[in-house]
Parts: sequence; C-alpha cells; structure tokens
Amino acid sequence: MCSDSEERLQKQLRFILEIDQEKNIFRQTHLSKHGRNENDAEHAWHMAIMAYLLKEYANEEVDISRVMIMCLIHDIVEIDAGDTYAYDEEGLQTQKQREDAAKERIFSLLPEDQKQELVLLFDEFEANETPEANFAHAMDNLQPLLLNNANEGGDWKEHNVRSSQVYRRQSMTKKGSEKLYAYTDALLQENIRKGNLQE
Amino acid sequence: MCSDSEERLQKQLRFILEIDQEKNIFRQTHLSKHGRNENDAEHAWHMAIMAYLLKEYANEEVDISRVMIMCLIHDIVEIDAGDTYAYDEEGLQTQKQREDAAKERIFSLLPEDQKQELVLLFDEFEANETPEANFAHAMDNLQPLLLNNANEGGDWKEHNVRSSQVYRRQSMTKKGSEKLYAYTDALLQENIRKGNLQE
Repeated sequence: MCSDSEERLQKQLRFILEIDQEKNIFRQTHLSKHGRNENDAEHAWHMAIMAYLLKEYANEEVDISRVMIMCLIHDIVEIDAGDTYAYDEEGLQTQKQREDAAKERIFSLLPEDQKQELVLLFDEFEANETPEANFAHAMDNLQPLLLNNANEGGDWKEHNVRSSQVYRRQSMTKKGSEKLYAYTDALLQENIRKGNLQE
Repeated sequence: MCSDSEERLQKQLRFILEIDQEKNIFRQTHLSKHGRNENDAEHAWHMAIMAYLLKEYANEEVDISRVMIMCLIHDIVEIDAGDTYAYDEEGLQTQKQREDAAKERIFSLLPEDQKQELVLLFDEFEANETPEANFAHAMDNLQPLLLNNANEGGDWKEHNVRSSQVYRRQSMTKKGSEKLYAYTDALLQENIRKGNLQE
C-alpha cells in the first residue's frame, strides 16, 4: 500500500512524465536561421525567459513568477488537442472544445489542489484579463514574430497570411505592453515594405 | 540614431534571438516512449515546471521564481560549449573553460545590468550552495532520470554507465531534497534489479 504522501508524489511525477509529450507537438513557426519547426515546449521555454527579461515593459506591474508559470504551461492542452495555427480559421472553431477536454484529462493527473491551481492559471491566461495574462499573451505573440522576422517572414509566405490577419492577432500585445506593441508595429511595417508580408 | 531606450530593447531582443540556438543543442537523454534525443531548451522547460510543482519537497524554503529562472538559463552556455554528458570524463575536464568563454560572449549581448543579473544567477546555480541552486540541481538530476526510467534505462545501456557513476551524480539531489533523493534511490535500486543499470 502507498502512503498518502507517496501517492501525492506519484501523481505529481505521473503528470511530469505526461507533459514530456509536449515536446512532440510541433508548431508552424520555424526556428531562426531557417531551422526546423519549433515545438510547444521550446516555445514556452523561450516565452518564459522573454517575460523575465522584458518585464520592465509590462503596462502594469506583474508578478513575474505567475507570468513565467503561465507561459510554461499555456500549451499543455495541445498534447491532446494539437497545435491550432493562429491563422487556421477552421481549426479555431473547434479549438475550445478540444482544449477543454484535454485540460480536464491532463491536469487531473495531478493531486487535486495542484490541478485546481494549474487550471486557474491556465484559465487566467486564456481569459487574458489580468496584467500577468496580458503580458504572457504579449510574449506568446512576440516570440514567433521574432523568429519569423529572422527568417524573412517565411512562415507568413508559406501560409499566404495577410498583414490584416497578423495585425488582428498582434494588436493584443497592446494589452500587455504598449512599448512592445510599438516595436511590433514597426517590425510589421518593415516586413510589409520588404515584401515578406502581403498587405 | 538610436535612443538609449531603443538600444536597450535591441540588446534584449538580440540576446533573445541568440538563445533560440539552445533548441539545437541535443543531449544524450531520450524523450519518453523511446523518443528522439532531447534538446537543452526542452530539458530546461521541463525542469522549471518540475521545480514549481515539487517545491514542497525542497529541504529549505525556496524563492520559486529564482529557481525557475535558474532552471531556464542554466544551459545557455552550451550554445557555444556544447552538451557535456554527465559521464563523459574527458569532456568534463575542459567543460569549465569552454563554458566560461561562452558565458562571457552570450550574456554580454544583454544590457549591462541584465548581463550581471543573469551571470550571478548562472554562477549561483553552478556553485550549488544556496537553497535555490540546490533545488534547481535536484531538478537537473531528476528530470533525465525520469525519462531514462520510462525508457527502461536505455541511455545508461547505450553508454555502459555503472550504478556507482549514477549514484555519484544523483547523490547531489540530497542537497536540494532529501525526499526526492529517497525516491531517486528507490528508482535506481529498481533499475539495478531489473538489469537496466549495471552494478
């Protein structure tokens, strides 16, 4: 028989092993220097470090450890639901349903208190209404933009994405950081000028 | 001309783009379910989430945001220095020199204050003397152990690693968490019994 404390550790480790699968969920974004597709775990790692380094640009003061853990876990549901490309209109319609089922299955591997804690953080990120969630979303937008810009807009070209679509998504960065949105805007204008992004 | 504040942001973004290369540094550890080799960015992402979820087992109370950022950046120097396998005796002799040069080059991309902050965190991790560094090291040991255990010790078998070598490294986990070391010990004994790890 397992003691309660052993059972608790077993549940935590079961979850930790499960999320190893996030490393197999590949995104549309390519690594810089025209590298391979990026996976969700790498993307989340990059976002968390960015949040730490760029926190001075958040519109409101943020609790950086909450921003970091939000960044780190925000794509865990994609282990079951898969990655939905930001400009895949069809996939976006079923995304919420697929991700809700995944959220329930995966976070339920944890002890109940930690399940609740992580689901709250995950939902807070999704709702995008607190300063921490706003800033984490700004990182979620800026991270692939930096890679795509380094690759002369290769991901936009591959998917025939238009600037109005990119602006619709990237404009959310404003909620987290006016300063980083100004940078984003300048970068998009430069990419339009260069022909990397269709107007 | 660039204003000081624009130059600051440019430096931060230059560093952020540089560390994208950590996703190309592959380790000896394989992903669970007999997957491909893991890279440093994925390993660091996994460690940071583990630290957050397992912090209750730290021997001393830890500042979790410091542990997380330490986990996230601890392998950045390997972008230049490459991964040194924990049981590669030859590589270990030149590791410090290679990593010192990399540390200077890569962190110097940042604004001076952030360079100093990250180098301090990096050095604190390496020195392994504070509660945060001790706990981050416990994660650095436990993370590949969980994957290797899930793969029936495939990484140990591939490199003919003996249990005495594994114990030498894993015993450091004790400094961060007696509880997680007890778990580690039980796991190693089980792998020895099963023939996954040579005595």
